[in-house]
Amino acid sequence: MKRALLLVDHGSRREEARAVLDSVAAFVRERSGLIVHAAHLEAAPPTIAEGFEACVRDGAEEVLVHPYFLMPGRHAALDIPARVREAAGRHPGVSWRVTVPLGFHEKIAEVVLERIQQQQEVPCAI
Amino acid sequence: MKRALLLVDHGSRREEARAVLDSVAAFVRERSGLIVHAAHLEAAPPTIAEGFEACVRDGAEEVLVHPYFLMPGRHAALDIPARVREAAGRHPGVSWRVTVPLGFHEKIAEVVLERIQQQQEVPCAI
Repeated sequence: MKRALLLVDHGSRREEARAVLDSVAAFVRERSGLIVHAAHLEAAPPTIAEGFEACVRDGAEEVLVHPYFLMPGRHAALDIPARVREAAGRHPGVSWRVTVPLGFHEKIAEVVLERIQQQQEVPCAI
Repeated sequence: MKRALLLVDHGSRREEARAVLDSVAAFVRERSGLIVHAAHLEAAPPTIAEGFEACVRDGAEEVLVHPYFLMPGRHAALDIPARVREAAGRHPGVSWRVTVPLGFHEKIAEVVLERIQQQQEVPCAI
């Protein structure tokens, strides 16, 4: 069965924020060999429906959706599955499931240590 | 100079979401030996002001604030620095700075690969 991965983050009006998900998609595509598309829950296109559609257009028979969120909050547990269900309704032959979000992982906590060691200050406009 | 780290995430009404930041704080405390406190930008206590206060109470002369966010969006770049500036105003002898958020990092992208390999479905109430 041909599978695709749809990565879904929160979405932002800031281009540098959206670029993060594109980098993750490129990395995961390279490592997994899967069809990988990215979408945003809100604030910017592509929407989840558009991302799902892109997976189907690439021939996916199953779409695995990963909520690219740090926490198992409302967005990952409810909002994303609801939108995916709606999008999938337009593609009856395609199965789908939603994975757990990132959650706690030592690798992510190690990135905190790297960031505080770098001690880069955020450009602060206030 | 005695330094403390204040980890700030978005905040959620879900206990399992808030527990993630506590796990990160415990991991970073163990690895870094720093005073570490956790706070939420919204939705649940402790607030940033309360977290900053806790750092000062523990003797911190400098508070390093890490926005525990995946993206360099508005929360990390503007909202958190603004709240920290306000909180720090009540502690004139204490210096502070805000680091960059997590942003893109291969270690985080590797966690995506782990999560999709596990293929755990999210409990879906809809």
